[in-house]
Formats: sequence, structure tokens, C-alpha cells
Amino acid sequence: MKKFINRPETLLAESLAGFSKAHANILNYDAEQKVITRLNGSEKPKVAIISGGGTGHEPLHAGFVGMGMLDAACSGEIFTSPTPFQMEAAANCVENGAGVLFIVKNYAGDVMNFEIAAEMLDCENASVLVCDDVSLPKDHSAGRRGVAGTLIVEKIVGAAAEKGADLATCKALGDKVNEATASMGVALSSCTVPALGKPTFKLADDEIEMGVGIHGEHGCKTQPLTDANSIVAQLMTTICEDLKCSAEQSVLLHVNGFGATPSMELYLVYEIASQFLAIRGIKVVRSLVGNYTTSLDMAGCSITVTCLDEALLLLWDAPVHTANLRWG
Amino acid sequence: MKKFINRPETLLAESLAGFSKAHANILNYDAEQKVITRLNGSEKPKVAIISGGGTGHEPLHAGFVGMGMLDAACSGEIFTSPTPFQMEAAANCVENGAGVLFIVKNYAGDVMNFEIAAEMLDCENASVLVCDDVSLPKDHSAGRRGVAGTLIVEKIVGAAAEKGADLATCKALGDKVNEATASMGVALSSCTVPALGKPTFKLADDEIEMGVGIHGEHGCKTQPLTDANSIVAQLMTTICEDLKCSAEQSVLLHVNGFGATPSMELYLVYEIASQFLAIRGIKVVRSLVGNYTTSLDMAGCSITVTCLDEALLLLWDAPVHTANLRWG
Repeated sequence: MKKFINRPETLLAESLAGFSKAHANILNYDAEQKVITRLNGSEKPKVAIISGGGTGHEPLHAGFVGMGMLDAACSGEIFTSPTPFQMEAAANCVENGAGVLFIVKNYAGDVMNFEIAAEMLDCENASVLVCDDVSLPKDHSAGRRGVAGTLIVEKIVGAAAEKGADLATCKALGDKVNEATASMGVALSSCTVPALGKPTFKLADDEIEMGVGIHGEHGCKTQPLTDANSIVAQLMTTICEDLKCSAEQSVLLHVNGFGATPSMELYLVYEIASQFLAIRGIKVVRSLVGNYTTSLDMAGCSITVTCLDEALLLLWDAPVHTANLRWG
Repeated sequence: MKKFINRPETLLAESLAGFSKAHANILNYDAEQKVITRLNGSEKPKVAIISGGGTGHEPLHAGFVGMGMLDAACSGEIFTSPTPFQMEAAANCVENGAGVLFIVKNYAGDVMNFEIAAEMLDCENASVLVCDDVSLPKDHSAGRRGVAGTLIVEKIVGAAAEKGADLATCKALGDKVNEATASMGVALSSCTVPALGKPTFKLADDEIEMGVGIHGEHGCKTQPLTDANSIVAQLMTTICEDLKCSAEQSVLLHVNGFGATPSMELYLVYEIASQFLAIRGIKVVRSLVGNYTTSLDMAGCSITVTCLDEALLLLWDAPVHTANLRWG
């Protein structure tokens, strides 16, 4: 295993210390609980938007804490849910009278721990479950996984909370964005979890893994490596069938790198995906290309499409100031 | 070779088409010349800041075109200088009466072609040569290479030009930032150039390459893989000896990923580097961590330190709106 690392068991703490130091102008850090919170939060009551999960997906979630997005992020060990105590600590830190909304990616550990945390809280709270991964059928036994669409839910709900929306409105909005979002990923390589020290699955030199999640687990299908046009067409066909996009629909197109894929390839994927949509009359009105929801050092990418109406577009465009998304 | 690609010979054009489409709100694209220019440039005369070079280093340079930074970027093939005709086309597009400043990384091909382009131009022009890579001695036969410090030169000079500095001032400022900047890189793996189809050098599983540039060339020394503390201490010792930083000096600390290194590891490197500086009384007043000057899919990172005075700090903080650097 070749990594910049001292010891696997200290990596997360050392890395979060560096992250919080590099962004000390906008973030607070509770080293004991491994919770990143927003500096200079709202003075008037505002729904506290909290997310979190296993690490290894950076910049998700800590990179999205700040004005107009998350109020706090809880970091578990790599690919491991944070505990209810971390979530409770985060809530106690940022709740200011308007309740707490947890944004939870659909994985058994995260779901269980956020549910326990919700029961522990004294304040009003609700949860949005993100399950945007359309590589699994809607009736899959564990439900669909939450992947790169999570940041879109976080951005749009975060903007609404910033504008003063109440808890019920934020919850309903999160569910709406989740419904309007579909993602699918493909891996060219596995990732290597430091504590394991070797790739979590193996692919031959001429194979790719279609329908992967973000935890180095196997995808739906191992298939031969083909050209980018064919790979992107396969992803986009599944995504568009699921979303049932009609012509003239406005969408956000998000190409997400899993960690080890060069920007040049991600923009090639974006180009092919945008042509796929253009041929069908679907209008790409906003774009996001880069490493946002990663899987350590995995080579691969996912494509996410979110159908936008005028209200969602305004919230997407609203000002945001976090370590890894910033505009307005 | 596993990449998202149709054919090596069409990768660059397809990728730039996607890039320019994703950022059409701030950029123009001349597909014939492969030149990205800033949309909505200055109306009053302003020094045109132009850079460029071989591609494979994204987001450098095209990702830094926009308000407060570059006016144009010329893209050569992967790791191959653009031609003087591309540079001339870029200059003709963005020059508006205050002359042209070329920011050139010190590589033979780039230097030669930018010199030819300068002779071809009818307007006043000057060049800043960036040579921040301290892994090579100052008296190296080809001079030191320009690496991740280039974006710092581009940001600071771009801010000055935006504020109305004249050509001589921008040129002197670029030289000053270059002098105040030192970088050094280390690779855990080689990169794979698509047209070659295999890694450009080989490392054993327990070896790293110290003092690498950004073109997949061998570094100064192949050495055993050690822990992150030791690797970072080696980089920082060389950098600080070169800069001759005194205690109380304010610096910008930039940890740059080469493309395949997870964010978690980059922030670990940042944490160790910032402690190294703190022990010596050197004050990190600004930070930048992420993939900014890459080498395709190389695993590795570089550290850059720039000594900042009050004037440079103000210019670094000045508003910027590009695809990959945005604030203010």
C-alpha cells in the first residue's frame, strides 16, 4: 500500500486537524468528537442542517460545511458510520431554536445511528434519506444507496434553511431533490482502504465495474473496458430511464470523480453526457465537474442528473461559502 | 491502460469542448486554436495575462482563466508545448491596449515557443519565467522547472492587472512572486500518458520518487517509502533552506495533489507541513490544498511555500472568478 500516511489509526485525526486548520476562517473543529461546524452561524433561529458518514469520500461532507450549506458534519472512520454521540454533539453545537435536519445517505449503519441520534435529541428534528443510486432497482432489499446526489440535496436544502425555511419545508424540499436526482457510477479500479492495505476488489486490465457505490464494494456487473462513448451512454441511458426526463426539462449535470481520475477525463465524460442530453432536447442549465464524492483512490466516476424547476435553480444558485463549494 | 477515452488523438479536443461548455458563463473557447479566453473582459485597457503549456496538468492553466487571474490559456497536447500560433491567437483575442504578459513555466519547449510568439506580436509584451522547483539546484543546466508555484504567480499578477497595474509593474511583480516561491514534489506512482499507454517510469511497491516534476519524468532520487512525517520533513527542509525563511515570516502554504492522491492524504501532508513551519515560528496566513497542478493520474503531491508581504497578501485575497479558483 502506497499512501501518505503515518499510521492507519491516526490518519483521520491528523487529516481532520489539517483540514480544520486550512479552513479555520470558516470552520470550527471539535477534535474529540470529530465534528466540523460552521463558524459564524446564523444569529436568528435557522434550521440546523447536519450530515455525516464514513470518511474516504472527501470533500463530502466536511468540505460542504459553511454558509448556505451544512451547519455541521460528523466524520466516522473510513467507510464507517459516525456514532450517535457524534451526531448528538453536532446537533447540540449548532441547533439554535429552529430544529435539526439530518441528511443521511442510505446505508444501514448511517441510517441506524442517525435514527438513534434523533431519539436522543431534545429538539425538534427530521431526516432526509438520500438514495439516488439508480444502479440498484427501486425495490432493492436495502433500498438504493446515497451517492453523489447527496451534495445536491445538501446545497439546495442548505440554501433554503439559510433563507429562513422551517423544518417541515426543509424536509419536504430534501425529499423532493432526492426524488428528482439520479446517479450511477463506474469504476476502472478498486480503492485501497488503509487499514486493509490492499484493493477491496480486483479487476483485470480490460475490465470495468459498472454500477459501483462509493465504498469500494463490487458494483452490479463486471464488464469489458470499452470506449468512453459507450460507457457514458450506458450510464446516461439508465439515469434518464429512471428519471423519465421529458424534452425541454432543465437539469443540473454533475460529473463526479472518485478520486484518481484526471480532470481531463471527467470533462470528456461531461462532454459526452451533455451531448446525450442535448440530442433528447434536455437542457443542461447548471454543471458541476470534479472530485466531490470520492472513494479514496478509486479510478472512476459517476454521473448525476437532477431535474430542476425554477425554485430549485434559485436555491442551487444561492450564495454558498464552504471549503469546496463557493459562489455568490 | 484504463482511462475514460475514445481515442488518444481526440481526447484533448473532446475534453476542452466539455470544459468550455461546463463553464460557458465565464469562458470563451476557440476550438480551432484550443485557446480558452475570458468572457466579459475589462473594458478599459488592462494588461492581458496569458499562460499555457502542455495539458495533463488540469486545472492549470485553463481552470484559472477568468476575472482576476488569466485572460487566456493556450492548451498544447499532453505534456507538449502549445505553438506560437496559439499564443499569438490568444494575444490577438484578449489584448486591449495595455500589452501582454506571458507567464511561462520553465521548460525548453514552452520557453522557445513563447519567445517566438513574443516576436510575432505587434503589441508591447513581456514574460515572467516561473522556476519554483527547488528539487533542482539553482545552477542546473536547464534552470529550475516551473511547477505548482505557477498558479500563485498567475493569481497575484492577475489581481494586479485587474486593479490596473501596467505591464512593467505586472512583470516585476511576477518575478518577485517567483523569487518568493519554492516547491518540491514526490511521487508514489508514475502517470500514464494516453498516447504511450503505459506508465512513464516504474517504482517498486516500497519505493517513492523524490523531487519529481509534473511530466511523469524521473525525479532526483528513488528512495524507500517511509511514513508521511519523514517524507514531508524532507520536502519542507529543502523548501525552507532554499527560501531562507526567517521566523515571523508570513507564508502561503499550498499542498498540491498530482491527480490520484485522496484529499484525506493531502490534508495530512498539510497538517505535518504546517507543524513544521509553526515550530520554526513561520506563520501560515493563507492555505490552498487540493489538485491544482496535476500530472494526469500520478499519485503524489507537492508542497509550495510563498513568502508573503502585505502587498502580496492583498493581491492573493483579491476577488477571483475562474472555473477552479473563486472567491471574494
